[in-house]
Amino acid sequence: MNLFGDDKCTANYMTTGLWSSDAYDEAKKYGEIVEVCNNKKHNWWDIDNENDWTIDPNARYFHFCSNETVQGFEFHEFPWHKVPEGMVVACDMSSNFASKRIDWSKYGVVYAGAQKNVGPAGVCITIIRKDLIKAPRKDAPLMMDWALTQRAPGGMWNTPNCWSIYVCGVNIAYMLEQGGIEAMNRNADERSKIFYAYIDSTDGFYKNSVNPKYRSRMNMPFRIKNDPELELKFTTEAHANNLRDLKGHWMVGGCRASFYNGMTMEGVLALIEFMKKFHAENA
Amino acid sequence: MNLFGDDKCTANYMTTGLWSSDAYDEAKKYGEIVEVCNNKKHNWWDIDNENDWTIDPNARYFHFCSNETVQGFEFHEFPWHKVPEGMVVACDMSSNFASKRIDWSKYGVVYAGAQKNVGPAGVCITIIRKDLIKAPRKDAPLMMDWALTQRAPGGMWNTPNCWSIYVCGVNIAYMLEQGGIEAMNRNADERSKIFYAYIDSTDGFYKNSVNPKYRSRMNMPFRIKNDPELELKFTTEAHANNLRDLKGHWMVGGCRASFYNGMTMEGVLALIEFMKKFHAENA
Repeated sequence: MNLFGDDKCTANYMTTGLWSSDAYDEAKKYGEIVEVCNNKKHNWWDIDNENDWTIDPNARYFHFCSNETVQGFEFHEFPWHKVPEGMVVACDMSSNFASKRIDWSKYGVVYAGAQKNVGPAGVCITIIRKDLIKAPRKDAPLMMDWALTQRAPGGMWNTPNCWSIYVCGVNIAYMLEQGGIEAMNRNADERSKIFYAYIDSTDGFYKNSVNPKYRSRMNMPFRIKNDPELELKFTTEAHANNLRDLKGHWMVGGCRASFYNGMTMEGVLALIEFMKKFHAENA
Repeated sequence: MNLFGDDKCTANYMTTGLWSSDAYDEAKKYGEIVEVCNNKKHNWWDIDNENDWTIDPNARYFHFCSNETVQGFEFHEFPWHKVPEGMVVACDMSSNFASKRIDWSKYGVVYAGAQKNVGPAGVCITIIRKDLIKAPRKDAPLMMDWALTQRAPGGMWNTPNCWSIYVCGVNIAYMLEQGGIEAMNRNADERSKIFYAYIDSTDGFYKNSVNPKYRSRMNMPFRIKNDPELELKFTTEAHANNLRDLKGHWMVGGCRASFYNGMTMEGVLALIEFMKKFHAENA
């Protein structure tokens, strides 16, 4: 609504999981959308060969999701060479925002639901290159008008979600105290390496099928012998052991562990201990 | 976006203050909007004679704001006889929701920002007659699609503003403990009667010019001798006495006291005591 304005436009969208797929469907309401690639044919575990991507060189922008929460698919090195020179890049960073250093010069728009790494649900952080903030399409609702928010006193056209914004600030201060983005990055590396190493050591009892190059450091979906009954037993027993919310998203099934910035190594190790015990009892 | 769907429609909108005026401007993005009346010519203190209202009998719905926060203009008895038989009524109840008993059979849609009488900012309570929930216009953003929210598991298509919703629940339980809607209604009556009676007793030193028939029980704007300097002195000294946020909205200037459900009689009396002292010192 904002990047297109009232122009007839196209945009390039990569479909790498649930969120980028929803973004693609949503964008189709406002313009001609080119699907760059679609990971569905790879069970969301891998991406099409770069040479097979469809890219409109005249599109207004290029959209991707840096970490797919549901599928556990994350770009560690984004293939920037595939983005046409000078094209605006828009990125949904909801589930890995504030987990690693970003080269902001590469992005036109970054948006991120705060409720993963930053603060309580109900806040969306949106970072927009100043020259991209201009009149949206004429029928855009007030609440989606970047320019209006920009020129409102204090950025508040409306009464915002004060408490959640305040808590984001408190939590950002806490993350800075802990060592800031470098510490968050190091922790994410350590947590995910230990977890994937354990999973990969179980001879396929636990299995994460994502191409290792794209394995998420935030969300680790895994299956247990592809057996929904065994997985239900796992999540039920885990819950009873204070290891909660390990059920996978309905779109992919199975189980999922999410290690956001707030996750402690103690928590990761407790989960692995439980998984070892469950493996021994159900092998 | 929802009530019109993709039909070419008209709607009737009353303009009685800032919020209904903004709603009118917003609605014009989506259809042909008929302005029933416009209180601006009365300085927002009064309403056009009913016989002069413009009403489209074939409009899809009829919109009004039950209490104008900025102007302190509230409908105590809404002129229901002016609404064409069977026409859907949509009402912005943000600033007097939960302050009095409502005849729900009269309304098709009621929406209310929670941050006045119910809970923290960041929540909008929307009550919709079931038969009115159907496909919105095709290009409506996901977040504005009533039907989608209705059919999502638990009404949650997105991750909602959990904490604020939770606090709304806690506060509603607290209001029920205090006697519920009848108690809220009685308190609003008592608070506002005492306050207006005091203002009206000051021989025009403090002045609220709204037609008494429409004086709000929630928001009491007042001027002090129409003198911005004196008003600044008032709000500054009041602030120093722990009586805060008494500055009027920039659209109308002057001062404003807001007595929402959370306001105690003790607070009202403390404000009046201060106003008496200020009057004596600045008459």
